[in-house]
Amino acid sequence: MEQQRAVEPYDVVDLITTKRFGRALDPEEIAWLINAFTRGVVAPEQMSALLMAVVIQGMGRDEIRAMTEAMIASGERMDFTALGRPAIDKHSTGGVGDKITLPLVPLLASLGVAVPQLSGRGLGHTGGTLDKLESIPGWRASLSTEEMIAMLTDIGGVICAAGSGLAPADRKMYALRDVTGTVAAVPLIASSIMSKKIAEGAGGLVLDVKFGSGAFLPGLSDARELATTMVHLGADSGLETVALLTDMDAPLGRAVGNANEVRESIDVLAGGGPDDVVELTLALAGEMLALAGMPDVDPAPALRDGRAMDSWRRLVAAQGGDPQATLPEAHEHEVVRAGSDGIVQRVDARAVGVAAWRLGAGRARPGDPVDHAAGVEVLVRPGDRVVAGDALFIAGCDHAGRMARGLEVLRGAVELGSTVPDPRPLVAGRIIADG
Amino acid sequence: MEQQRAVEPYDVVDLITTKRFGRALDPEEIAWLINAFTRGVVAPEQMSALLMAVVIQGMGRDEIRAMTEAMIASGERMDFTALGRPAIDKHSTGGVGDKITLPLVPLLASLGVAVPQLSGRGLGHTGGTLDKLESIPGWRASLSTEEMIAMLTDIGGVICAAGSGLAPADRKMYALRDVTGTVAAVPLIASSIMSKKIAEGAGGLVLDVKFGSGAFLPGLSDARELATTMVHLGADSGLETVALLTDMDAPLGRAVGNANEVRESIDVLAGGGPDDVVELTLALAGEMLALAGMPDVDPAPALRDGRAMDSWRRLVAAQGGDPQATLPEAHEHEVVRAGSDGIVQRVDARAVGVAAWRLGAGRARPGDPVDHAAGVEVLVRPGDRVVAGDALFIAGCDHAGRMARGLEVLRGAVELGSTVPDPRPLVAGRIIADG
Repeated sequence: MEQQRAVEPYDVVDLITTKRFGRALDPEEIAWLINAFTRGVVAPEQMSALLMAVVIQGMGRDEIRAMTEAMIASGERMDFTALGRPAIDKHSTGGVGDKITLPLVPLLASLGVAVPQLSGRGLGHTGGTLDKLESIPGWRASLSTEEMIAMLTDIGGVICAAGSGLAPADRKMYALRDVTGTVAAVPLIASSIMSKKIAEGAGGLVLDVKFGSGAFLPGLSDARELATTMVHLGADSGLETVALLTDMDAPLGRAVGNANEVRESIDVLAGGGPDDVVELTLALAGEMLALAGMPDVDPAPALRDGRAMDSWRRLVAAQGGDPQATLPEAHEHEVVRAGSDGIVQRVDARAVGVAAWRLGAGRARPGDPVDHAAGVEVLVRPGDRVVAGDALFIAGCDHAGRMARGLEVLRGAVELGSTVPDPRPLVAGRIIADG
Repeated sequence: MEQQRAVEPYDVVDLITTKRFGRALDPEEIAWLINAFTRGVVAPEQMSALLMAVVIQGMGRDEIRAMTEAMIASGERMDFTALGRPAIDKHSTGGVGDKITLPLVPLLASLGVAVPQLSGRGLGHTGGTLDKLESIPGWRASLSTEEMIAMLTDIGGVICAAGSGLAPADRKMYALRDVTGTVAAVPLIASSIMSKKIAEGAGGLVLDVKFGSGAFLPGLSDARELATTMVHLGADSGLETVALLTDMDAPLGRAVGNANEVRESIDVLAGGGPDDVVELTLALAGEMLALAGMPDVDPAPALRDGRAMDSWRRLVAAQGGDPQATLPEAHEHEVVRAGSDGIVQRVDARAVGVAAWRLGAGRARPGDPVDHAAGVEVLVRPGDRVVAGDALFIAGCDHAGRMARGLEVLRGAVELGSTVPDPRPLVAGRIIADG
């Protein structure tokens, strides 16, 4: 320790101990911690002890801001100010059946807003946007910065893999959190998301913060705290940020998987699709248009008149995908049926997400392949009346061995009752920076 | 995660999350955790997150017992029942100037009790018994089990390095705790100490649990909780255990370092030495004699009549040491003097320990060498009257560069006042198992 102090300004054990006792760390201490972790001077086992102390003891606004800034400083920053159109970013905290990025980006692009979507792959019960798009034959996720800029300039949108240059400290820290039970904590989720979003350099950001069983933070008050924290971080960095709190207690739409979610997105782009997917797409589009200086533009017509679909085809083709190609379909299907009469009280998003994962749509470890054809079709929504024997879900997969474990969890995913449940609004709140 | 579940009975992230929220782990879960950590299935960064959750959220008596048993099960157990005399063990939680093992082991040996002392080296501001004994030319710390048994049989005592066979899980875990700010927590300290002591297989155990500024847990209530926890762990394992709570707010004796502590121990063995060192040696000896079935034996005469000294010389010689050899002395000395008149209120044990460490008596990292000649002579005790210019400490070291940093902390180590402070009893409490 004495020797380390001679070359480093802080002793990591002192800083861990400070947070252990619930005291605040100084911004300079946090900046050093993140930097030293990136350099390998702070070891993974030291950072994971500190992260657990943060998870239990919390962090104040100044600490969260310092952590976000330190993670931004660990990498490069992008700049979209030369595009010639407003660049507005969007982020969802992740849910089951959440394919909104797919219709949303071409919709905005068709209306003159540039949307850079640096996306990820799925892990666990929520899918990843890139996994879904890779159902399209030929489509590739990795682009150079030049290719991205060209697409944003020519078409007005791009959905591609985030490079390793943005907030590498966050990438390293997230890998650690994933295996140490330190994912679900507001300060860590907020700084992780916002460090990448601020480094991306868009002119505005709309956040879709989920609550309900399928969300990482199921409680509404936790989601509200997360949204407020992120909106403040955006404001503190000069990135105008708006958050919607949206319900993820039931899956979004009917399709949960990969190829089936692309099909459902194309339905939306063709003016159809499930009501909830359309509603959320338009709600987020409205917020993004407002941040882009176009608060009076109604995005709905562009879904009906083919403009959004045109942009979708151009986006897919620009990344090597064939917009007309047939998407993979599962060869084996099983129908889950109601065991009794009743009114649907809940469709448990988490259970459906876990089922799709077990059927092959998700991965257990980073780098595992996913089965693009596997997934779940959700046939009922809360409030629907069913009689015994009615179909509730259709499970699809291509590996016989996976079917049983997927069905097992689907069978408990619908809760029936005798009364009509209160309707739950899809958008439950809207958070903007105060003052 | 799915794949890991197929071969391991638990998912470590689930167990970390359980403790994160302050819920108790089952004994089977704890047994698996310790075993899987030893096997490398649970990674260091996962264990350190769990340890931080334990440090903040605590553990119940059943959990602590399960952890202790799992650490014992990770290694071998010793057995001293064939020695032909009672084997009684002793452990101190560590303090500044705590050389009690040195006079205590030969004293007990001279009275017919066998004392196996598997000791460690110092790290940080408290010294290690092996470091002190290595001041003696020729003395070696590492013995085979056969050599240990032979010394216990022939002489009745041995002080040597703990082999790697006892509770290897604890060794691995302690190395992790040391760098992750998770040392000072009662459940972890108690299970660490007691796993080794129970595995050693003595017939009784006396614990010297320190409190005050020089102790790892300075608060008396923490020390009492630690002592009670360890006494219960002993009782639960059939190891009769008694704990004394002893004051470590001021250094023990006058000598803090290595060779100077050996000299002071020899003074005690010759019937002299500082009162507090003699008092604590006799108090611990009395408890050990009682556990050995000799409650009426008074140990004090053996210090005065040379029996303890004879045993000391045999113990040192049996490990290659020369009992008559001249011990190393520092070449450079500086005297720290009182800046004003007054009555000594406190002599801060921690400050004196840090000073000795900085002067070269301790090490910053495991494996570093120590300077056996370096150390501090403490010339005053609480209650002493001093006038400006009186000597308070003599600092000794052999590396000119180290003197200034040692003196810096020594200068603030004595607190003067105008009234006589209340005397603090050295032994503040005694804890035995209830029922």
